[in-house]
Amino acid sequence: MTRHDIRHEIAHLARVEIHTPDPDGTLWFFKDLLGMYETRREGQSVYLRGYEDPYQWSLKVTEGPVARMDHAALRTSSPEALERRAKSLKDGNLEGKWTDGEFGYGKTYEFTTPDGHDVRLLWEAEKYRAPEELKSKILTRASKKPLRGIPVKRIDHLNLLASDVTPVKRSFERHLGMQTRERLVDGDVEAGAWLSSNILGHEVAIMRDALGARGRLHHIAFYYGNPQHNVDAAEMFREYDIVIEAGPDRHGLSQGAFLYVFEPGGNRVELFGDCGFLELEPDFETKTWTMDNIDVVTAIGGTTLPQETYFTYGTPPLDSPEQAAA
Amino acid sequence: MTRHDIRHEIAHLARVEIHTPDPDGTLWFFKDLLGMYETRREGQSVYLRGYEDPYQWSLKVTEGPVARMDHAALRTSSPEALERRAKSLKDGNLEGKWTDGEFGYGKTYEFTTPDGHDVRLLWEAEKYRAPEELKSKILTRASKKPLRGIPVKRIDHLNLLASDVTPVKRSFERHLGMQTRERLVDGDVEAGAWLSSNILGHEVAIMRDALGARGRLHHIAFYYGNPQHNVDAAEMFREYDIVIEAGPDRHGLSQGAFLYVFEPGGNRVELFGDCGFLELEPDFETKTWTMDNIDVVTAIGGTTLPQETYFTYGTPPLDSPEQAAA
Amino acid sequence: MTRHDIRHEIAHLARVEIHTPDPDGTLWFFKDLLGMYETRREGQSVYLRGYEDPYQWSLKVTEGPVARMDHAALRTSSPEALERRAKSLKDGNLEGKWTDGEFGYGKTYEFTTPDGHDVRLLWEAEKYRAPEELKSKILTRASKKPLRGIPVKRIDHLNLLASDVTPVKRSFERHLGMQTRERLVDGDVEAGAWLSSNILGHEVAIMRDALGARGRLHHIAFYYGNPQHNVDAAEMFREYDIVIEAGPDRHGLSQGAFLYVFEPGGNRVELFGDCGFLELEPDFETKTWTMDNIDVVTAIGGTTLPQETYFTYGTPPLDSPEQAAA
Amino acid sequence: MTRHDIRHEIAHLARVEIHTPDPDGTLWFFKDLLGMYETRREGQSVYLRGYEDPYQWSLKVTEGPVARMDHAALRTSSPEALERRAKSLKDGNLEGKWTDGEFGYGKTYEFTTPDGHDVRLLWEAEKYRAPEELKSKILTRASKKPLRGIPVKRIDHLNLLASDVTPVKRSFERHLGMQTRERLVDGDVEAGAWLSSNILGHEVAIMRDALGARGRLHHIAFYYGNPQHNVDAAEMFREYDIVIEAGPDRHGLSQGAFLYVFEPGGNRVELFGDCGFLELEPDFETKTWTMDNIDVVTAIGGTTLPQETYFTYGTPPLDSPEQAAA
Repeated sequence: MTRHDIRHEIAHLARVEIHTPDPDGTLWFFKDLLGMYETRREGQSVYLRGYEDPYQWSLKVTEGPVARMDHAALRTSSPEALERRAKSLKDGNLEGKWTDGEFGYGKTYEFTTPDGHDVRLLWEAEKYRAPEELKSKILTRASKKPLRGIPVKRIDHLNLLASDVTPVKRSFERHLGMQTRERLVDGDVEAGAWLSSNILGHEVAIMRDALGARGRLHHIAFYYGNPQHNVDAAEMFREYDIVIEAGPDRHGLSQGAFLYVFEPGGNRVELFGDCGFLELEPDFETKTWTMDNIDVVTAIGGTTLPQETYFTYGTPPLDSPEQAAA
Repeated sequence: MTRHDIRHEIAHLARVEIHTPDPDGTLWFFKDLLGMYETRREGQSVYLRGYEDPYQWSLKVTEGPVARMDHAALRTSSPEALERRAKSLKDGNLEGKWTDGEFGYGKTYEFTTPDGHDVRLLWEAEKYRAPEELKSKILTRASKKPLRGIPVKRIDHLNLLASDVTPVKRSFERHLGMQTRERLVDGDVEAGAWLSSNILGHEVAIMRDALGARGRLHHIAFYYGNPQHNVDAAEMFREYDIVIEAGPDRHGLSQGAFLYVFEPGGNRVELFGDCGFLELEPDFETKTWTMDNIDVVTAIGGTTLPQETYFTYGTPPLDSPEQAAA
Repeated sequence: MTRHDIRHEIAHLARVEIHTPDPDGTLWFFKDLLGMYETRREGQSVYLRGYEDPYQWSLKVTEGPVARMDHAALRTSSPEALERRAKSLKDGNLEGKWTDGEFGYGKTYEFTTPDGHDVRLLWEAEKYRAPEELKSKILTRASKKPLRGIPVKRIDHLNLLASDVTPVKRSFERHLGMQTRERLVDGDVEAGAWLSSNILGHEVAIMRDALGARGRLHHIAFYYGNPQHNVDAAEMFREYDIVIEAGPDRHGLSQGAFLYVFEPGGNRVELFGDCGFLELEPDFETKTWTMDNIDVVTAIGGTTLPQETYFTYGTPPLDSPEQAAA
Repeated sequence: MTRHDIRHEIAHLARVEIHTPDPDGTLWFFKDLLGMYETRREGQSVYLRGYEDPYQWSLKVTEGPVARMDHAALRTSSPEALERRAKSLKDGNLEGKWTDGEFGYGKTYEFTTPDGHDVRLLWEAEKYRAPEELKSKILTRASKKPLRGIPVKRIDHLNLLASDVTPVKRSFERHLGMQTRERLVDGDVEAGAWLSSNILGHEVAIMRDALGARGRLHHIAFYYGNPQHNVDAAEMFREYDIVIEAGPDRHGLSQGAFLYVFEPGGNRVELFGDCGFLELEPDFETKTWTMDNIDVVTAIGGTTLPQETYFTYGTPPLDSPEQAAA
């Protein structure tokens, strides 16, 4: 099977599970500020979805000793694609296992990236069906936009930190058929890679962990679809004591409107204001940025990303016991 | 080859050629108001591109006795896909022929839709390379955003009128692998179909011609990527005597921010403010709207589409000699 | 006292009281959709304020048999200005009386416009002081922006219908010192007048009642301060079954971003997206529009105001018993 | 004459003259990027106006050895107010003189603030009358919005640096009747004051010069009226190599949407996205901010003002020969 053939095998990022030491704060953040709907509670976990997320959940919040990503799951474009991708990973010596699905999703292949992130593939996903009072008049909208906070539409993308970007990138390219749209290089070293399997700028990004740690999360991103909502959200975050790291502004890389904040549990969340650049060309060329235009990479406007956090802070934080043991 | 296999064979809408009886007015509209770059003049034709269009041109303006679409061309996702799609069309008895490319594009397969529209397929497309002074700092941007008017980024989609929607829709589904995302039905009759082969809401739409004419154009759409620019453009059009048909507002169908105007030659042009709903689900269900919610189909806000033009006016206009002879 | 001297005697529109036959619906509209805070309940009335309204209330919702404006009140710029304006009204044979204040406001002069509207003047107004949990970090913001609906900042302006515009306009000019910024004339007849006593485009407008009724309300307007919020509100209103009459669009007259809806009780409400044109010139010239540019008067974009309601519907509706008795 | 009586004697900021060592660059900036119209050239000076500026010019660009403000002029609200303000200044020992007007303006009273800024008062101002081809359909718009760059509507406000804020503030309060809306204090020292004589947040601001220099300019601000245009302008500045100092973001103080850049000559220019907070209360209380909430003062979003420039850079720069001689 050629590279050509596999480039649409992954459909999109379906869900992420995060751990939080402050579940009340984290749930207040996602439900009251970002307007996500709760679809289930089970044990120490709560399942959430944005009003346009198509499935039962896109975010699972689980109480845990330290803020971190538990796992992320990509949906394949067919059941056969799932089998093929699992086989490719196995053939490539990326360890993995099949598990039964959990709430809202079916059979799942779990593997570990070369840097230690827990990533999963699945096909079966239960479509969310809104009860009558939550049905939207807009047929492509899975449920009404809620009246709480500044509601996000859906999950958008995932940004992982890695001690070494290139092997993680290569595994996503080789085994998942994802394509690297843009890269950032620092001399000979790959400092970041942004990958997608559809016309979005990226669904998975991998950035160098300046502290050299393995398998951490940089951020998960949710989608507004309107850059003004990033501005509205910034005002809300400021008023309600959520720490804004940077933005609202627009990245040069991806051309996406961004806003970075820390949810009360400590995980970084990006609000993605619009779709940014959509790559329609089937034979696009990967764009390579260098450190001398890092300012445009990060922001078209006047934002300077805070050095003390943006390139070093990830979850789990390095001073956490869990991370220290790793 | 199964339907599954062909759903990514068409990459995107690459270009449209229109005829205009007022070439000066039409070019002023696209160049001075919509900020498109001229890349070539040849005979009675001028080639234009938006600042993020990836190829040499996305719009060809040709002087002609009557406003109309000459042809539209879709780019396939590989050279093999082009061969396969041409074969499928031939096998399906949709007449066509191979021609040499014209400026900026290669070998082309031209066919006629069941309703008489000239649609073309091609793979070879020359990438636009900006001269130094037009190079953008943003690597995914093929050229600087110009300082004229309210510039569009790129061509977005094509909306065709048809005397009978269903056969045209079926030919795009069967032979081009495009998927129908949303439909409008009027009792048993299909009043409209919106198709795409990527996650965009549509790249080709087909709407019923209320006058029963064959092979006409409803509109071509260009992309802003920011709904505020539709508002800015409306103000510009008002000040510079361009007739606004409807908008700015947001469609319920596609969730796209719209503004409809008539370019001075008479063709309807839509400005598409943002990407609207992106369909990420590989097993999405086609959404079917009925006439009893036509108000939401057309606008989420208060816009009422003008009955006297929106559902009947197309190009060529029915009173034109060219159309009368058809 | 010359006209020059009195042009700042009125400071701004402080409050409006409306009647509604559907108090639950009306309160849900203003509190849950427009995010207004309730500051008091008393008898059949509820007092509301937007998060930047400076006083205890800007809107009083009272249960009543028919939708209508009970009264509107303007605040003067000093206690002496209140005395002077009351004297001028009396000297001008506009009947009135002094009353004690009600909740949050002091001594009030009530008079009746030549067309029968109940308008009041007052100076004493109790500043709203937010409790700790509602205090904003932004010092000019009287309370935090709430997390419900798409919240309005404050009351903006008042638009009255009159059987005869000119006498009402003249009484506001002569006795209150307000200035007519823009006018609409239909031949020899004044079809509308927009007045202010500060740099806002208008705080009181008077439009001709096409049905010839006396003393009705056209609309009250609340202020967002961001035109995108009109778009967000339109989407909310559509989803939650509030009838949108027209917009979002921008008026040519006043250059204000507008959206007209009917609150569940039946009163028309305008959402004013931004401040529109601010008149800084002390010797500005009144702008006079004529009916041949009525389209630009009403909208810069493609909106057509619905003839069947915009120019004829007011509250109380003409078929109401209360109005029939008037 | 009481304080009450003088609070509307100043109508608004009418014009500013700046010097630039790079007149070609400065004019390209204001004309091609900010879309200002040139109304006259004379000697080493060019007169410019935004498309909604009501007079012949709001900005005069003069070639000079060093970037700086030459003078700013406020328009009074009547000819009598001009006489009264001049007398008050004289009585207050602020030296001044009457001069004849220059292009577009009449008799002028020139005085020097306690910190050395050249500020002028005038009443006579020639209204700009657009030629037929530049007439706008919108009657409150003095001329059509041009098709060049991202055009500003009009001049908005002036921000002066002072070695000692308080005396300058007091002179504007006492002699010009301007009111201090917001203040920033650093312990016992006034670090900034924002003054207005209408409902705008400020027309003149005075900020402490961290370098202790006298009589410098911090920035002049131009008005867009739409915060999205600040974002559009930032993208334009980035593409066309204009240095962005900070923004787009929104100040907590004034609630104005800001973007700071340096024009090619070196003067700081602010683009003011919308009107921010409008002070309608005649008996408003001055809001006093302290250094512990300086982050909200400067930005509601994530912007950090660059310490190395924002609080120290002004024009003339301190290393300029002109300044060294002062």
